[in-house]
Parts: sequence; C-alpha cells; structure tokens
Amino acid sequence: MIQNDLFLRAHRGDSIERYPVWLMRQAGRILPEYRAVRSKLSGFKELVETPAFATEVTVQPVDLLDVDAAIIFSDILVVPEAMGLPYQMIEQKGPWFENTIRSQEQFALLDDHIDVQDRLWYVFEALKQTKTALNGRVPLIGFAGAPWTILCYMVEGKGSKTFSESRKLLYTQPALAHRLLQRITDVTIDYLKGQLAAGADALQLFDSWAGILGHDQYVEFGLHYIEQICQALPNTLLTVFSKGAVASLPEIGELSCTTIGLDWNMSVPLARSLVLENKTLQGNLDPCVLYGSTDLIENETKKMLKSFKSQRHIVNLGHGVYPDIDPEKVKVFINTVKNYEISNFDNA
Amino acid sequence: MIQNDLFLRAHRGDSIERYPVWLMRQAGRILPEYRAVRSKLSGFKELVETPAFATEVTVQPVDLLDVDAAIIFSDILVVPEAMGLPYQMIEQKGPWFENTIRSQEQFALLDDHIDVQDRLWYVFEALKQTKTALNGRVPLIGFAGAPWTILCYMVEGKGSKTFSESRKLLYTQPALAHRLLQRITDVTIDYLKGQLAAGADALQLFDSWAGILGHDQYVEFGLHYIEQICQALPNTLLTVFSKGAVASLPEIGELSCTTIGLDWNMSVPLARSLVLENKTLQGNLDPCVLYGSTDLIENETKKMLKSFKSQRHIVNLGHGVYPDIDPEKVKVFINTVKNYEISNFDNA
Repeated sequence: MIQNDLFLRAHRGDSIERYPVWLMRQAGRILPEYRAVRSKLSGFKELVETPAFATEVTVQPVDLLDVDAAIIFSDILVVPEAMGLPYQMIEQKGPWFENTIRSQEQFALLDDHIDVQDRLWYVFEALKQTKTALNGRVPLIGFAGAPWTILCYMVEGKGSKTFSESRKLLYTQPALAHRLLQRITDVTIDYLKGQLAAGADALQLFDSWAGILGHDQYVEFGLHYIEQICQALPNTLLTVFSKGAVASLPEIGELSCTTIGLDWNMSVPLARSLVLENKTLQGNLDPCVLYGSTDLIENETKKMLKSFKSQRHIVNLGHGVYPDIDPEKVKVFINTVKNYEISNFDNA
Repeated sequence: MIQNDLFLRAHRGDSIERYPVWLMRQAGRILPEYRAVRSKLSGFKELVETPAFATEVTVQPVDLLDVDAAIIFSDILVVPEAMGLPYQMIEQKGPWFENTIRSQEQFALLDDHIDVQDRLWYVFEALKQTKTALNGRVPLIGFAGAPWTILCYMVEGKGSKTFSESRKLLYTQPALAHRLLQRITDVTIDYLKGQLAAGADALQLFDSWAGILGHDQYVEFGLHYIEQICQALPNTLLTVFSKGAVASLPEIGELSCTTIGLDWNMSVPLARSLVLENKTLQGNLDPCVLYGSTDLIENETKKMLKSFKSQRHIVNLGHGVYPDIDPEKVKVFINTVKNYEISNFDNA
C-alpha cells in the first residue's frame, strides 16, 4: 500500500484533500546530492544503466524535496538503443547516434523481435530497487518517449531545432515512417508493461517534439501510435505529455489515457474547455518562475492553482525543471501547493 | 509604379486574379547564385553590410524563381548592433554576442538616442539600390525583428532552445525587460520608417521566439510593443509573423496591421476564425513539403489553397525555406500557386 496516494487519487479523479505535486526532471542536476553521485561515475549512461545509482537519485527528491511522487531516473533513448541503435550522451551537447534510420535498408538493420526484459533489464531492476527503497512512501512513475519523439532521434541522430530530416521522412517516405513508428510502438508497449510488472504505479509518455508537427500530421504520425499504447495498457494510470501540441488538444483529450500533461504555454482554462472533466490535467507552471523571488513563486503558483476549476489536477511545471534552479526555490513552489486550500468545487 | 502589384493588393484586401507568392529566406542559401556571391566574401556580415551585394542577392529570386515580391537581404540583428551590442555570425553555429544585457548596468552601456540613418545606412542604401534594380517589377519588402525576439538575443547572447535567461528576466527584472523592450521598439520604429523612406513597399515583423512565452506574457512583453510599432506606422502594409503563438491568435488578430503570418502548425480555418476578414493571412505550407516529389508538392500546395475561403491570402511557407531545398522544387510550389484558379468567393 502507498502511504501518500494523493497523486494516484488525482490521476483517477478520486477525491483529494490537496493537489499533489512533483516536478519533471526532479531527479537530476538541480540537486547537489545528485551531482555528488554523478561525479563518481564515468558518465550519464553509467548512471542510467546501474540500478543502484538510478535508485539513489530517484529517491533523492522524495527525501530532499518532499514531492508526492517519484519518477524513475532513466532516459527515453534507452528504447532506440534496445532496438539496435546505440547512442552516446555527450557532455554539454546532448545525445548523439552514430547510425540513423533514413532508408528501408537502414531500418532493416534494426533488431527485430527484441526481448525488452533482456535489453532493458537495468530499468526494470532500478524500478524494483526503487520500490523497495521508497517503502510505500509515494507512488513511483515509469515513463517512455512517445513514438514520434523517438523517431525524431532515430532519424536525426541528435537534437535539432527543426527536426527537418524527421519531418522530411513523413513526406518522402511515409510508409517507412509508419513502419518505424509501429516498431517503436510495439517495443514501447512491451517496455511499459515491463515497467508496470517491475512496480511502476503510473506511467508517463513524453512527446517532446509534438509541437513541430502540424495538426493533421500529429494526428496521423503521433496520436495514432500514442492511442495504440493507451489501448494496450487498460486500467493504467497514464499521462500523455505532448509538448507544444496546443492545436491538437481536442484530439489529445480523446485519448484512452487518464491524464494530460500541459506545457507552460497552454492556458489551463482553454485546455479544460477542450479536455473534458473525465481526465486529469497535469502542469503547468512556467519553469522560469522558479528563478524569481519567494514572493513571486508563491504568487504565480497561487495564480495557477486558482485557475483550476476542479480537483482533477496534478501540479507540475510545464517543462522539466531547469538545471540552474536553486532547490530552495523548488521547495517554495512545493510548499505553496501543499499549503493551498482546495476549493469545494460544485462539480467535485 | 509596380508592374506586378498582386502582393500589395492582397495585403490591402483588394481584388486579385490569383494568390501572390513569395518565400521567407528566398534570398539565400538555396540558390547556387547566392552561394557564388557569398563565397567571394569574408562572411555573412560583409554581405549584409555591402549594399551592392545585398541588392544582388535580393533580386536573384525575382529573376530565378519569379516570386511576386522581393525581400531585402539583411538580418534582424543589425538592430541590437546599432544599439551598441555588436554580434558575430559564426559559421554552422549562428549569431554570437560578446556582451549581453542582463542588468541595469549593462543596459546603461547601450547607446542612447542613436541615429539609425547613420548606423544602418547600409540597409537603407541596399533598399534604394534594390528599388532601382527591380525597376518596378515587384514590390520590395523591408523587415525587422519584433522587440521580444530582439530582446531574446540581447539577453541570451546567442541562440537557445529555451531562451530561459530571457524568460528569467521577465520574472526577476520585469521593469528592466520593459525598459529594454521600449528602447528596441523606439529604434525599430525609426528603422522601419527609414526603410519606408528608402523605398520599401511593405514591411514584416519577425517574432521568431513568440512561441516560447505563455499567453499572458506574450500579450504583455510581446504584443504590447508590436502594437506600438503598428500604430507608429499608419497606412503601411505591415505583416506580423509571431511564430508559434497560436494561443495568442485572437489578440494578434486585433493588432493594427494589415497581414498576419501563419506558421505551418497553424490551421488556416482556425486562424481565419480568430482573425477577421479585415486582415490578410500569409503562409503557411510546411517547408518540409518541398523535400517531396513534384506530385506531393502540387497536392499539398493545392490542399492549402483549397483551405482558403477568401481572397485575403498571400502564399508563403510557414517558416523560412530550409537551406538544402532544391530550387527546382521551389519552382513547383510557385507554379502551382500561379496556376491555381482562385474561387469566386461570395464574400470577396
């Protein structure tokens, strides 16, 4: 049993005493305790691939920031690597893939019918160890990249401002794009089922590059595969975070998931008008607010909380916490949420 | 007199026989003739600062692609440089400023009351020479960066994925941000008036980083200053292109300008429902369509054209043309627009 199950109740739409709060990228560079672990290792990937270390940094924000949920420390790019496309994480630069998938021939070089238990054992083991370490204090979130975002990295081979190679593929080789997206989707379903089996209480799909596609393309190449994942995981607490896809919010609201993540550019009232009350909204304070004074953080956080017109909310930032944010400022944000008295909504 | 004034008529909402078409970044790297000029020079800035060369590459797409408007070859960063913040354009990397504005002290180091005629003489001279070279064939567009986008570069000092330093300033030093935005606005008004005096037939404001601000901040720190510029330039054909600001389209539609630029993520019918028929819409084909086959380009272009429900449209891409696009594909796009028979709209 989970002692603090506020996050799970808000996900399900059950009654809550206050809004639950956690932060995307809460396990990471903002914490000196994280940097201490990281400095002992050869690199980012050693941390991701060593369950004991991944567990340690996953639990840190629960101990240090008192968040209402833990999220497993990992990387969305473990999936393409498991599919046969290894990557490196280059300091100050980001991910880099030696090989990319831009042709049928390159696609054929990917490993077919992979055993995710074998290839991604370290994530499942980290989840198990984290569950033990958390000892039921708060729920544990597992995650994966959404298929479109994973395709972006597999085609581009690195980060990009426009991901024009990936978007080019949709026009020049749509059948190949669909084949690759389907392969990613199948692996991701296996991977997420494995995470649930290893103890994840809830899941989140990150579609970081949703916003670079126009509406129709995002429906065809993005949401179609996300919905497959949702349907393959019935009775699961699943959050879909399609960053920048404000134009597709009506369709996102129709997905078979429980919660919709909002970025800081999405207006909460507008999102609620497009996403019915049968789903929870998660977000969406501008992460730059945490650069501000204590007063500013309190005021902006309260302004956001007041814009909520029901209990179906999980509080988060609208993007991962930026690396140079002072953890004390994060605590101001968290405490403001915890001290906020939730209204007696007529519709709650 | 302008021989082909289709662009001007569509801007004003006058009757047109067919939709006018041009491309953002049409004068540039896609053309071998541009690269030939560029290769003779020390760098990008020599091209920007030498009127004869800027004129030559501005006219190239009129000669080679037969577009319905020319846009002066220049850079939005000439404005911060004129204000006392010089930049370099580093190959493969983009702009870089040695100094940035993040404090009142740094702001105080900017040059006050600058004479734009003196500092930006080379842009005005390029406009004059281009007018002569065009000899009235098509209209000439002048442009500037919108104040928020210029602030982003002055604060960040280079490109960024998040522009978190700039967004931080809005929370931590809003008064300084407003002071800087006002200064940029005042210089930009002088600069654009100078461009009109030098022969520009129409103007465009590029707000490339509009989309990284939430709605309320974009209204306060973005649109407020754009509206000042619009009001300072009455009876001017002015296009505002706020890339990514789909959530602010209702307010953008209220600006005192004649035309609204749409990026490729913005749905034309949705945009039209938010921007009344008293304004022209410009855009918005996904630039990645031009990677496709002739058939694909024709079909996607026609699909866009069919979505227009009035004559108040100027055709363009939804972003600058990408540097590795084949100019022959650009011609397919342009010819498809030119051969498209405009409907007899009831409301036209």
